[in-house]
Amino acid sequence: MSRWQPDARERLEQAAIELFVEQGFAETTVPQITARAGLTTRTFFRHYADKREVLFAGEEIPEMAARMMAEAPEGTEPMTQILEGLRTVAATRFDPRKDEIRVRRDIVRSDPGLVERDLRKRAALSEVIRSAFVARGIWPLRAALLAETAMTLLYVSFDEWLDSDRDLFDVIEKTLAELRETIA
Amino acid sequence: MSRWQPDARERLEQAAIELFVEQGFAETTVPQITARAGLTTRTFFRHYADKREVLFAGEEIPEMAARMMAEAPEGTEPMTQILEGLRTVAATRFDPRKDEIRVRRDIVRSDPGLVERDLRKRAALSEVIRSAFVARGIWPLRAALLAETAMTLLYVSFDEWLDSDRDLFDVIEKTLAELRETIA
Repeated sequence: MSRWQPDARERLEQAAIELFVEQGFAETTVPQITARAGLTTRTFFRHYADKREVLFAGEEIPEMAARMMAEAPEGTEPMTQILEGLRTVAATRFDPRKDEIRVRRDIVRSDPGLVERDLRKRAALSEVIRSAFVARGIWPLRAALLAETAMTLLYVSFDEWLDSDRDLFDVIEKTLAELRETIA
Repeated sequence: MSRWQPDARERLEQAAIELFVEQGFAETTVPQITARAGLTTRTFFRHYADKREVLFAGEEIPEMAARMMAEAPEGTEPMTQILEGLRTVAATRFDPRKDEIRVRRDIVRSDPGLVERDLRKRAALSEVIRSAFVARGIWPLRAALLAETAMTLLYVSFDEWLDSDRDLFDVIEKTLAELRETIA
């Protein structure tokens, strides 16, 4: 076995997810994960800070959101910007990985610490969007509402998407129509 | 000093908040709090599980929300129900305690663990509202949107309220008008 493992990260992730599903998140240890992946714990910790990070690392959605927000042409309507952002993230990060994300959701739901980590992730993404709108000159209250609306659309649509065979952005568009009607 | 301290809880809370402000949340210990309050650590732990709980206990807002949701007359429009709920909570739990809540906000912001606890509180309240609407026969997607909208209105208005001399529900009504315009 060569020291350089180009696929180490993927092997660790696959082994971890398998074990989380088979025996539970709390019951799974890093040595069990590395044993199944045929790698050392040293390699594990080169890629992940702890076993929780296997479920949250590598998504880079806040970075992607920050980039998209900064690159949108000046004068783009804020809601258009949000919808175009959600469309891109849905098509590139969510739809192609639906089965995997479904498994991940069930693991996260099973553990209060993971649910908490997920809430922090949501708050961090909201903050990225809010501050990017402020940087574009949007009034703070409206920037906060735009960010919260983006998170509501994404999170409320998420379960419906996972439990259906539709594309995420289709669900998001329907959710927005429903939101408009709800608060009208 | 009599063994029965009718005001022990208030004295502990006041001592804790003073110390959190003076020397920081992380640096404050339970023995310091009880020394300042002139009470024993045993008394402290009869009232609070840990020092963090001093900032979060006694609010009972989820219980209040659940009760109000269950008691609303049948056929009440869901958005009316949310606004009436927010009006009551704002007038009874927020406006009379504004100075105290402002101090509390600054303490919470200073500590990532407290921010996390606050996010969990928000998620728990959203879940109470969502499931109460489902119990009243509202379609799940709409119930989730109603709950998220209630939380958005409350949380986005919160800072603006604390930084102004207006009543919370006035700010909430303005935030709703702004939200309608934002997603129109």
